[in-house]
Amino acid sequence: MTVAPFNPTPRTLMGPGPSDVHPQVLQALAKPTIGHLDPQFVAMMDETKALIQYAFQTENPFTIAVSAPGSAGMETCFVNLVEPGDKVIVCRNGVFGERMRQNVERVGGEAILVDDEWGHPVSVDKVAAALAAHPDTKLLAFVHAETSTGACSDAKALCALAQQHEVLTIVDAVTSLGGIELRVDEWGIDAVYSGSQKCLSCVPGLSPVSFSPKAVAKLEARTSPVPSWFLDQTLVMGYWSGTGKRSYHHTAPVNSLYALHESLRLLQQEGLENAWARHRAMHQELKLGLQQLGLTFVVEEAHRLPQLNTVYIPAGVDDAAVRAELLHRFNLEIGAGLGALAGKAWRIGLMGYAARHENVLLCLAALKQVMAK
Amino acid sequence: MTVAPFNPTPRTLMGPGPSDVHPQVLQALAKPTIGHLDPQFVAMMDETKALIQYAFQTENPFTIAVSAPGSAGMETCFVNLVEPGDKVIVCRNGVFGERMRQNVERVGGEAILVDDEWGHPVSVDKVAAALAAHPDTKLLAFVHAETSTGACSDAKALCALAQQHEVLTIVDAVTSLGGIELRVDEWGIDAVYSGSQKCLSCVPGLSPVSFSPKAVAKLEARTSPVPSWFLDQTLVMGYWSGTGKRSYHHTAPVNSLYALHESLRLLQQEGLENAWARHRAMHQELKLGLQQLGLTFVVEEAHRLPQLNTVYIPAGVDDAAVRAELLHRFNLEIGAGLGALAGKAWRIGLMGYAARHENVLLCLAALKQVMAK
Repeated sequence: MTVAPFNPTPRTLMGPGPSDVHPQVLQALAKPTIGHLDPQFVAMMDETKALIQYAFQTENPFTIAVSAPGSAGMETCFVNLVEPGDKVIVCRNGVFGERMRQNVERVGGEAILVDDEWGHPVSVDKVAAALAAHPDTKLLAFVHAETSTGACSDAKALCALAQQHEVLTIVDAVTSLGGIELRVDEWGIDAVYSGSQKCLSCVPGLSPVSFSPKAVAKLEARTSPVPSWFLDQTLVMGYWSGTGKRSYHHTAPVNSLYALHESLRLLQQEGLENAWARHRAMHQELKLGLQQLGLTFVVEEAHRLPQLNTVYIPAGVDDAAVRAELLHRFNLEIGAGLGALAGKAWRIGLMGYAARHENVLLCLAALKQVMAK
Repeated sequence: MTVAPFNPTPRTLMGPGPSDVHPQVLQALAKPTIGHLDPQFVAMMDETKALIQYAFQTENPFTIAVSAPGSAGMETCFVNLVEPGDKVIVCRNGVFGERMRQNVERVGGEAILVDDEWGHPVSVDKVAAALAAHPDTKLLAFVHAETSTGACSDAKALCALAQQHEVLTIVDAVTSLGGIELRVDEWGIDAVYSGSQKCLSCVPGLSPVSFSPKAVAKLEARTSPVPSWFLDQTLVMGYWSGTGKRSYHHTAPVNSLYALHESLRLLQQEGLENAWARHRAMHQELKLGLQQLGLTFVVEEAHRLPQLNTVYIPAGVDDAAVRAELLHRFNLEIGAGLGALAGKAWRIGLMGYAARHENVLLCLAALKQVMAK
């Protein structure tokens, strides 16, 4: 077996993530590896924590990056905050709400399902009814920005409802963080997780997570041990805590954290509101172009995510052939449909560094050429 | 808050890991991010799988890299292969055997403990007695190379014993893979996990894992769901399987996998036996020098790991001050003691790319200067 060095062809990444990574982030990634308990590394982690707090708009002391992808960030929330027998209202309007249900049930919780059609936001009224029907509910879990459909749910209203019922919230912000308005403290979100590879435009593999003091209190009051050792945040807190001596839990993914630090630094330099506005502006440009190509959106305008544009594949167009030609002729990746939308829709991402004029132009021109064939 | 770009001071990493990363691995890491379902990436994953099989000396079709550090590799083995009520013999002769116990109990298994003193190998006789005393044992779990003490256990003999009793084995090869002889198929290991940041000299954050067909059969025969969604290998297999269409499970840590591919490629170029011999040779050089400095080893010669040299801190020497001075004057990291050996021993790693003549010389000369003060 002779294996050559791997030299990937550079692509423009306009799928559902990973998104285009900023060159400075790749440079940061390749800086010399140092020890995970080196004082320089620890100081960098403190900065990273502050930058995650800024991105989430929270002052939660419990704010970290889980050393694994967004799916592990999701699991971190459920495995720590759901105890066996806990009733959890789970909103399903796409792939990731269903994954939440599986998380709840695997740790022995009881999932109360609130279903909405794919492409629709979570219905605030249905959640209100579920909360009224189940007064012993402990948690409400929903996806802010559904990556499988491109629908945005009203996280602010849903969290306000939960607070009225003294129910904690777990919010999936994998695709929302850095791309659209998200205010963890102001909205009263109790547990939130995201991913590095969407609107932060960092490499995939890390999951920013934050727990409110109420969530930490629920974790600390557990009567059963957290079923996962790796994701047990009572153990991880000792490593990420800003005070005193860091205790070893696991070896942090040192270089990936360099990259996350740089991507969050770039976000902070731009300013969160400016980043949100840029995503909206690029979405407007892309939307007009897609409509001129005759493509229609899966999600109604009011609930559309600017960073993830899901459009129906026109009748007679070969899904896989178009995506393959975009990739091979133009080195452009757009996303296939997922789950119920597989083969029916494309998902065109404008996430983070990918949300640029040149990407919009390339995507529209390339789609036009390829679809004309 | 103004955050400057992070520019770590290059270090020589001779602790218990992360170890020095080969420059080609850092270069591979920073190559352009492409999609995790891109045909080029999928082909690279196939190569990576073959290279992991080579490193483990296995033909197991179920051979992958878990998208998280070695601790998650450990959890992958326990969470998939231990069902509630399963009796598991867990050998404890350091920190990581104890972590195995916690893994067993968190998933509802029953841990039968075989304890040996820190710094000693696992006693094959005690394991034989435990297997005889517990004929309903399902699994035997032990650490091949204890990173907390530097002791090497006889994995071949322990696995032979387990096979006589028709018991499956889970072997921690975090520090052994690439550094000392490890033959998964020949020895009959059923589940093995490692880490990217030890003798592979890759960046931290990935965990190579392999399951034998017997382990896969136990997983497939489970009557209860795997308690972790993220680590459920029945779901992950669909993504890593070499045949047909890859199904999406989670977003792979694309760039870290580039780095793993390159580090395994370098190992294969050198040849596994040559790499083992290099670790032995560098250990001999270091050992002589350490003995000349009057330092004594925690582990008896017959059971010493060449890649992790644990020596007692001489009386009157300030542990933290010495390590800090090595770091600040010479940019040299050696490891502190862990657990029962905290404050009592240093752990000097010669792992992967760090196992070089120049590192041995630097370490000995620097220790001599700093300890003379």
